[in-house]
Amino acid sequence: MLVLHALTGDSHVAGPAEPGHPTPGWWDGLIGPGRALDTGRWFVVAPNVLGGCQGSTGPASCTPDGRRWGGRFPFLTQRDQVAAEAGLADALGIDRWALVVGGSMGGMRALEWAVSHPERTRALLLLATVAAASAEQIAWANVQLHAIRGDPHWRGGDYHDAGPGLGPHAGLGLARRLAHVTYRSERELQVRFGRAPQGAEDPLDGGRFQVESYLDHHAAKLVRRFDAGSYVTLTEAMNSHDIGRGRGGTRAALSRVTARTLVAGVDSDRLYPPAQQAELAAAIPTADHVRVVESPYGHDGFLLEVEQVAALVRELVG
Amino acid sequence: MLVLHALTGDSHVAGPAEPGHPTPGWWDGLIGPGRALDTGRWFVVAPNVLGGCQGSTGPASCTPDGRRWGGRFPFLTQRDQVAAEAGLADALGIDRWALVVGGSMGGMRALEWAVSHPERTRALLLLATVAAASAEQIAWANVQLHAIRGDPHWRGGDYHDAGPGLGPHAGLGLARRLAHVTYRSERELQVRFGRAPQGAEDPLDGGRFQVESYLDHHAAKLVRRFDAGSYVTLTEAMNSHDIGRGRGGTRAALSRVTARTLVAGVDSDRLYPPAQQAELAAAIPTADHVRVVESPYGHDGFLLEVEQVAALVRELVG
Repeated sequence: MLVLHALTGDSHVAGPAEPGHPTPGWWDGLIGPGRALDTGRWFVVAPNVLGGCQGSTGPASCTPDGRRWGGRFPFLTQRDQVAAEAGLADALGIDRWALVVGGSMGGMRALEWAVSHPERTRALLLLATVAAASAEQIAWANVQLHAIRGDPHWRGGDYHDAGPGLGPHAGLGLARRLAHVTYRSERELQVRFGRAPQGAEDPLDGGRFQVESYLDHHAAKLVRRFDAGSYVTLTEAMNSHDIGRGRGGTRAALSRVTARTLVAGVDSDRLYPPAQQAELAAAIPTADHVRVVESPYGHDGFLLEVEQVAALVRELVG
Repeated sequence: MLVLHALTGDSHVAGPAEPGHPTPGWWDGLIGPGRALDTGRWFVVAPNVLGGCQGSTGPASCTPDGRRWGGRFPFLTQRDQVAAEAGLADALGIDRWALVVGGSMGGMRALEWAVSHPERTRALLLLATVAAASAEQIAWANVQLHAIRGDPHWRGGDYHDAGPGLGPHAGLGLARRLAHVTYRSERELQVRFGRAPQGAEDPLDGGRFQVESYLDHHAAKLVRRFDAGSYVTLTEAMNSHDIGRGRGGTRAALSRVTARTLVAGVDSDRLYPPAQQAELAAAIPTADHVRVVESPYGHDGFLLEVEQVAALVRELVG
């Protein structure tokens, strides 16, 4: 089974916190002995994406000449990333996946697997994803790309050897603030934070609202663990996602899928709204009707509603 | 009649383009002889907001010592701004407005008028606004405030005399990009732009998508005409908006309203979603049931759907 992570995810998909991974796996609860992705029964592979910063080659990696890729790192598409994953499958001796599963950016690659390698994809689970990045998804990405590239510490992507603390941290933090709002729901933010001040701070006298402190926290946390160059590379790869490009359009491309397929959206997702998954389910010949994950958390529901995702996996692969 | 503009609006509410105003008035079509706000019948006042940069005192204005206010400009609330507008009404000899009307940030001040000066507000039209800035509105504002203040050219707000082109233009442009997406709707962006490239540019080879060019345009346009210090001051004033603060809560505050009131939202507005206007209409004792402006354009519908707004004005003041 192939598990494909989203933008800032990684191969630490299950298991406890460990050195280099300060939190449990991002889909812990879904994967392990006796769980939906039962490691007693299946061989589960969760590779770091090409272009990322968690293991596979990315802008922060060194080239054979010993310098960082930095701004020289090539433009990647989802298709390039899946080609790398197919090479990994070859190297592992895996002819065919029993299941390819991913959400958000991971769902884009899962779909690309099923279209470009239908014979290697027996079952497909697509969560909170889309057939082609939409105008609004590109617009949100645009603001984030400008935030990072507009940071004076970006230096055209060649900041990795500039010295400690001299990367485009402010730009990456800004991008994360924006992205994090799009990952959650208006209702959740209102119920959870409302207009409450942060501790003893007074928002009318230079202090913060709780929701501002929450964004500060998520910005700082990502800056500590993620490379801005990878963020740019992966964001542009998502913008490039168009399953129908060069294949006679979306419908024609999706008609190549032979995998038994389930597509699910999150009811409160405003970044990848449920209508996009309904369109996918309707256009993939081997897909059952679209499923809805119920969650107050917005797009992040595909990560958080583990029980509902587990039920979909069990339905698909027993 | 008092017309209150939104964040980047101004007193040029009607009439053609003119020196200093390269476009027609932002509510042209609504205001003028024979129009809903009939200047043959009513005296219509549209002041520039306190803290802005279009005429009333703001961070770019000079203090009596001859230097710019810049970072010394005080924190303002909506209530301070309405106090200034009440002073203007006094100076003009206007005891009571026949109508106070505003949308978005202008609607916040219109509501504040009706609560703090019920005897001076005979009718009230609130469009695409809210009783208190929500957690999500504060979150979007937070990203924009960080974008501007994180620009090295911000200099703590004291950039006005740094020299031509040395203001926090990148930060203000970023803020506008984000804000502009929130002002429109996902559907509109998709129908209008989809994944189309900009002219002969190739998004897979360093070029832009059309929707990116659109954001470039709106960022550049705002940077040319608006002061970043005012943007910060007015954004923080919006964050401070809480009609119930110090008044026993929202319900108690809204019960002070005696004006004949209509509240309307835009069906596709995701920044000030229609539920917020429904709550306002339900809690203002003198308000009729909430009205819905139908528009594909999102929040900006209150500016663009002039015919529907005109019908609301006519219903309210004949």
